Amino acid sequence: MSTPALVLDLLGTFAFALNGALTAVRAARLDIVGVVTLGMITALGGGILRDVLLGALPPATFSDWRYLAVATAGGLVAFAATRQLERLAMPITVLDALGLSLFAVTGAGRALDLGAGVGQAILLGGITAVGGGTIRDVLVRRVPTVLSSELYAIPALLGAVVVVVPDRLGVGGLGWTLAGAALALTVRLVGVGFHLDAPRPPGVGPAD
Amino acid sequence: MSTPALVLDLLGTFAFALNGALTAVRAARLDIVGVVTLGMITALGGGILRDVLLGALPPATFSDWRYLAVATAGGLVAFAATRQLERLAMPITVLDALGLSLFAVTGAGRALDLGAGVGQAILLGGITAVGGGTIRDVLVRRVPTVLSSELYAIPALLGAVVVVVPDRLGVGGLGWTLAGAALALTVRLVGVGFHLDAPRPPGVGPAD
Amino acid sequence: MSTPALVLDLLGTFAFALNGALTAVRAARLDIVGVVTLGMITALGGGILRDVLLGALPPATFSDWRYLAVATAGGLVAFAATRQLERLAMPITVLDALGLSLFAVTGAGRALDLGAGVGQAILLGGITAVGGGTIRDVLVRRVPTVLSSELYAIPALLGAVVVVVPDRLGVGGLGWTLAGAALALTVRLVGVGFHLDAPRPPGVGPAD
Repeated sequence: MSTPALVLDLLGTFAFALNGALTAVRAARLDIVGVVTLGMITALGGGILRDVLLGALPPATFSDWRYLAVATAGGLVAFAATRQLERLAMPITVLDALGLSLFAVTGAGRALDLGAGVGQAILLGGITAVGGGTIRDVLVRRVPTVLSSELYAIPALLGAVVVVVPDRLGVGGLGWTLAGAALALTVRLVGVGFHLDAPRPPGVGPAD
Repeated sequence: MSTPALVLDLLGTFAFALNGALTAVRAARLDIVGVVTLGMITALGGGILRDVLLGALPPATFSDWRYLAVATAGGLVAFAATRQLERLAMPITVLDALGLSLFAVTGAGRALDLGAGVGQAILLGGITAVGGGTIRDVLVRRVPTVLSSELYAIPALLGAVVVVVPDRLGVGGLGWTLAGAALALTVRLVGVGFHLDAPRPPGVGPAD
Repeated sequence: MSTPALVLDLLGTFAFALNGALTAVRAARLDIVGVVTLGMITALGGGILRDVLLGALPPATFSDWRYLAVATAGGLVAFAATRQLERLAMPITVLDALGLSLFAVTGAGRALDLGAGVGQAILLGGITAVGGGTIRDVLVRRVPTVLSSELYAIPALLGAVVVVVPDRLGVGGLGWTLAGAALALTVRLVGVGFHLDAPRPPGVGPAD
């Protein structure tokens, strides 16, 4: 993985570790072990799923100590600064959107590096992005955001498309990676801000 | 995998994709992304678990575009035709039983192809059959059918036995595969129809 | 794996199989298939997670028939002797603590055998120890013990440290393995007995 891609991947890891740890504090008021554990699972889960599906084991996010260190640090920071972080506007949602966007592009990029096809690379970008948060939600007994929420998988898949298609056309690079992450982040935050959902089945009303 | 086995496997994938997508509509009234996502997870989850346990990564159900296409199509069909499908008698249960029966025999067959022992092949047939539905149930926060329901794992294991034992005796073939699937389907539907459960622990009454 | 390590690993498997099966009886009053299934998942889940993260597939706990046999036997014994086992003091908690302690040291040992680094080996000891119980809790819809309970991950990590550090200093051996398991078991049972939790975030009270 190139250095800029690694930096983006570690940033995403940190954002998800903060998010998972804050979720643990808010959802279940866990102790420090529970808070850091949920932060690490949220931060590392998506990359582990991606590498299992790519057959690239052991997973990079587990065998590379930098991911473990950043994920642990994120959990500890969130534990120590819970009150300060909660004073920010929507910190959990924004951190989740950041991690989602960064992992969508880095996950798709890693899939391309390892020889995945176009469709698989886009899907793996999406899975990397939503995987950790889905495991987080299952562990604290919520319906996963990817199933229930305003535009969540779609921005991730869009971000991955912006990485994968130029790469296949031979013009890929860091610019597209940043553009993909920015697109995913924008679409996700607009979706959250306006409570946008994708279309529902014909004849079925919204949930009460 | 031989062509008939592939066809049965894709049929099972389609049945589980319809089932998962309908579950999403009924259980949680999700939008199109949630519906298709749950359909794909239900359809592909069992095969992914099987291939992880066989060490055959990347999983066939992920690296082969035909599985992804059939699973996506199943989710979209269920989304578009929710009302028509719900008019059928017990569509969710019957589709689940179909997927269960087909995956039990194709999962056991793939395990044999990859050199698994007798016990492992039977167990992998069962895991392929119940895996996707178990992940589906966890995601929509239900106790998994395999733990709670009328005969669910038993028909899958029976179907796998009908594939594995003749193969080990050197007389395996498509006939046994079809017979195994038919047996699994019959036992499962009889179990559903008559609310049959396996024996409970001595001295412990049924749940209220 | 050396013979003593294998014996400890099979003992841990048996303890977790009893624990998972009793959990199934108590939490959900499942039938025999559900009881044995939850026993097997609890007993084998941690080792499967460990081997996936080590890239050592197929997982030893699945490809080696002794693990499958011991896990099945544990589930069946718990099913047959539910009432006798429930008469013991806290059987579920003690069995869980036993499995936790044994898997912490055997999991760390296996990670070292397969060339994992110090940090990874300690973490893998912890993951092996808490993995099966976490999957068990998700399946019966409880917040996992590792997130919520009195000292659970900490004793597992301590036990793993007692195995990994001497090994790296060139003085490892069965004595350290047994000492690590004893330490983990003691810390866990003291944590349960005195309802000890790790520190909570500053300014956040305990859950109601």
